[in-house]
Amino acid sequence: MEIDLYQVSHLARSIVKEAGDQLNLEWKVAKETVAKDPRDLATKYDLMVEKQITAALTKLFPNHSIYGEEVTKTKQHSPYAWYIDPIDGTKYFASDIPLFSVSLGLTDKDKPILGVVYNPISNQMYSGYQTGKAYLNNSQIKVADQRPLKETIVYGDFSKFELLSGEKQRKINQNYFEVMSRVYRVRAFGCGSLGLCWIASGGFDAFIDFTGKTKIYDVCAGLAILEAAGGVYEHIAANGEKKLIAATNRTTLAAIKKLII
Amino acid sequence: MEIDLYQVSHLARSIVKEAGDQLNLEWKVAKETVAKDPRDLATKYDLMVEKQITAALTKLFPNHSIYGEEVTKTKQHSPYAWYIDPIDGTKYFASDIPLFSVSLGLTDKDKPILGVVYNPISNQMYSGYQTGKAYLNNSQIKVADQRPLKETIVYGDFSKFELLSGEKQRKINQNYFEVMSRVYRVRAFGCGSLGLCWIASGGFDAFIDFTGKTKIYDVCAGLAILEAAGGVYEHIAANGEKKLIAATNRTTLAAIKKLII
Amino acid sequence: MEIDLYQVSHLARSIVKEAGDQLNLEWKVAKETVAKDPRDLATKYDLMVEKQITAALTKLFPNHSIYGEEVTKTKQHSPYAWYIDPIDGTKYFASDIPLFSVSLGLTDKDKPILGVVYNPISNQMYSGYQTGKAYLNNSQIKVADQRPLKETIVYGDFSKFELLSGEKQRKINQNYFEVMSRVYRVRAFGCGSLGLCWIASGGFDAFIDFTGKTKIYDVCAGLAILEAAGGVYEHIAANGEKKLIAATNRTTLAAIKKLII
Amino acid sequence: MEIDLYQVSHLARSIVKEAGDQLNLEWKVAKETVAKDPRDLATKYDLMVEKQITAALTKLFPNHSIYGEEVTKTKQHSPYAWYIDPIDGTKYFASDIPLFSVSLGLTDKDKPILGVVYNPISNQMYSGYQTGKAYLNNSQIKVADQRPLKETIVYGDFSKFELLSGEKQRKINQNYFEVMSRVYRVRAFGCGSLGLCWIASGGFDAFIDFTGKTKIYDVCAGLAILEAAGGVYEHIAANGEKKLIAATNRTTLAAIKKLII
Repeated sequence: MEIDLYQVSHLARSIVKEAGDQLNLEWKVAKETVAKDPRDLATKYDLMVEKQITAALTKLFPNHSIYGEEVTKTKQHSPYAWYIDPIDGTKYFASDIPLFSVSLGLTDKDKPILGVVYNPISNQMYSGYQTGKAYLNNSQIKVADQRPLKETIVYGDFSKFELLSGEKQRKINQNYFEVMSRVYRVRAFGCGSLGLCWIASGGFDAFIDFTGKTKIYDVCAGLAILEAAGGVYEHIAANGEKKLIAATNRTTLAAIKKLII
Repeated sequence: MEIDLYQVSHLARSIVKEAGDQLNLEWKVAKETVAKDPRDLATKYDLMVEKQITAALTKLFPNHSIYGEEVTKTKQHSPYAWYIDPIDGTKYFASDIPLFSVSLGLTDKDKPILGVVYNPISNQMYSGYQTGKAYLNNSQIKVADQRPLKETIVYGDFSKFELLSGEKQRKINQNYFEVMSRVYRVRAFGCGSLGLCWIASGGFDAFIDFTGKTKIYDVCAGLAILEAAGGVYEHIAANGEKKLIAATNRTTLAAIKKLII
Repeated sequence: MEIDLYQVSHLARSIVKEAGDQLNLEWKVAKETVAKDPRDLATKYDLMVEKQITAALTKLFPNHSIYGEEVTKTKQHSPYAWYIDPIDGTKYFASDIPLFSVSLGLTDKDKPILGVVYNPISNQMYSGYQTGKAYLNNSQIKVADQRPLKETIVYGDFSKFELLSGEKQRKINQNYFEVMSRVYRVRAFGCGSLGLCWIASGGFDAFIDFTGKTKIYDVCAGLAILEAAGGVYEHIAANGEKKLIAATNRTTLAAIKKLII
Repeated sequence: MEIDLYQVSHLARSIVKEAGDQLNLEWKVAKETVAKDPRDLATKYDLMVEKQITAALTKLFPNHSIYGEEVTKTKQHSPYAWYIDPIDGTKYFASDIPLFSVSLGLTDKDKPILGVVYNPISNQMYSGYQTGKAYLNNSQIKVADQRPLKETIVYGDFSKFELLSGEKQRKINQNYFEVMSRVYRVRAFGCGSLGLCWIASGGFDAFIDFTGKTKIYDVCAGLAILEAAGGVYEHIAANGEKKLIAATNRTTLAAIKKLII
């Protein structure tokens, strides 16, 4: 059954707003309890938000599959699957650093087709879907014009670097150096969902998943938004890993690819 | 055709959020130009937001009637009609006073059944619908417990008082005095949509439309939210006008009615 | 000893910002506990903020008198006295209504010469001092141009109306009717500090203390800001009470006075 | 002449708040014009804020030296010098990324003794001074407890990396790899003032100036806040550069130093 992405986007934005409001409410309270154990706190709020979003999706899209980063794994016979990252940047949330998001993406046969990424502290909601446009709140966003490689700012993702073998770490560092010495700057924020949105809205030029460990939960929403804003991405094989590379345009993407493979 | 109010509420909240984001964006810019003529400015932003909401409603509910306070009058063969107050409190919006809302209500055969009222400056979204609960953002709200009349705070609406005859003005003032001398306080804010929400959320105890001039655009959303929060309302005939009275409960409503009739 | 009002204004703004941040922090937590008893809650936060401001003033201005609405009464041999209203609009604070302020005023031999009024929810800080200008945050504000009386919006204050005799209440209601039938609208918000600032910034045209019960804590800061923005005020005797009248200009003030005396 | 740091801190916070309010006002307007040329825009707002802060400092501290990142170089015969970074993170400001600050630091004979770092979008003001405590708004902050090196999160600064020789770049990359493979994660945000504050408030564990190119404007305020929160720092010589290393405690600082030298 075909779905109306305009309608689904409004529903997804409302669900994510609701979840963000909850985090906004907990943001100040959280501070006081975090000292004891940041990890447990994180889990508590991650779970709370994931459950809330799952409940809404289940009511609104009873036939769709729903997967959450924490616990939700509801498989259905449908081409459509939702991916929830309840708090991308949990440690920041727990440390009063306003750099986290609620991220909700929809795939059609595994391809991201719609996304919402919301930073409740700055009240910035990024959204977009296939065949539609991309938005920051109510304002349309577009990727930046192509720039010479040495002027580009790259968002670098290093998920799970600490779990890799020394051999793989060295290889990544070599890749990293290749990139650093050819672009203007590599930034590493630890919040991939917002990283992709910042490419979509013109602040950054490319995204490199250095470790090959980004998960669909982290990037599904951001990739749909990036495409709606005119950006491109590709999964490449490098060092025995499948790595995600994204950019504002095909030329920059090709140039980045050469540095990684 | 039956509609799913849970789904419709999410759609309405997303539409209103989008409109509120636009006002948030204009809030600071507005200041600089308002000096010339507050009235024209008001009209400009009211129209902008009304068009934006109308466009979204038309896509999502092509069979529903849609009426806006400014220009929209789209009548359809449907029991469902939407009422848009794009900016309730335009003068406040134009004067940097954070006391205005975007208000969107849905009626079923003229009865308010669903509402969303959003103050974008404080990021407070009130919502509720028939058979459902009422919310301030993601937190459930309820009317306050019944209080003795002399402890109640009443929201008084004086819409279009200046257009009434001296005779009617005196009558209203008499009513007003009856109320003032029996309750704790009467407040007159000039933003009826938020006034009704503040009864729904426990801050105020009753609402009196002293002039009988409130319009469905002003109160449709608020009344649906108030009912969902446990409150009650009634249209009474007084001084040759149909007047709206609302309260947290039937006892208070009855006590207020006696002072007006 | 002469004081430098430019310096004192910066100090006062920082102290008030600090207090507002505290209220911002408690704003969400407050909600959950208010149900039990709004009055006690109010007292708790009022006291907390008054103590905080008093401590800062004592360190910075050890020779000045300091008076707080709640408990502080520190009399010194100095022409300078500070008046603190820790939360003007406590009930609103306790009811999630973003219409309250931290208000701090300085007098020189009983005349208000400097004021800061801060709404922490909308992050709007009004400030001004004698011989200086008035500001909303970093933007200069001025009173509105003179308007015909029938186009003016009046802020009406009804402090302690419930404690007055029936005779006085009737007299006030008569005054009130005189005003209502000659101006565009009378608004009654229950937050006098912000009311005066809204005249200073062009939203309202006049202020009437109908009961003669406003206290120096409520209006000291607002009056200094109003004067710095070009407005005027006067204490008049009416019905055996000393009443405060303020306006954007002398002509409007005179016209209002005639309706009250 | 001795200064009262408690008083000076209030003054500095008020000045920085005022500047942040201006940026908050421009934040939304900026978006529309940034497309043409982000670099010029940046310069415009950087200059506007630097002039505003310089004017206030000049009035309040006429005998102190004042240096701004853009143009201000006012040398006086005084042990006290102010360092202004009007917008640390200009590119983020121009790209709707809420990760920039107004940063104002005071030195006494070149040693940072007082600092204020303000993110106006999240309304987070970090402050602290020698012999005093450190604060995030009105809440005291402290560095995190010591953690095993492999659990630490390091803020890495790569200022002007693109201007270094290939030889120096390789050396830095080698240092970087040493660090990455021993700590939990290295983050590179490009906003050093906030990076230092996040160590002060418990989110991060250490700061490494990999290129030796951080300027006093970037770090003066943050270092004073870090010390007031219990943290430590040191300038070390490495690869022919003077590099800044900071941490939550001496043990972590020593461990980090070993990886860099």
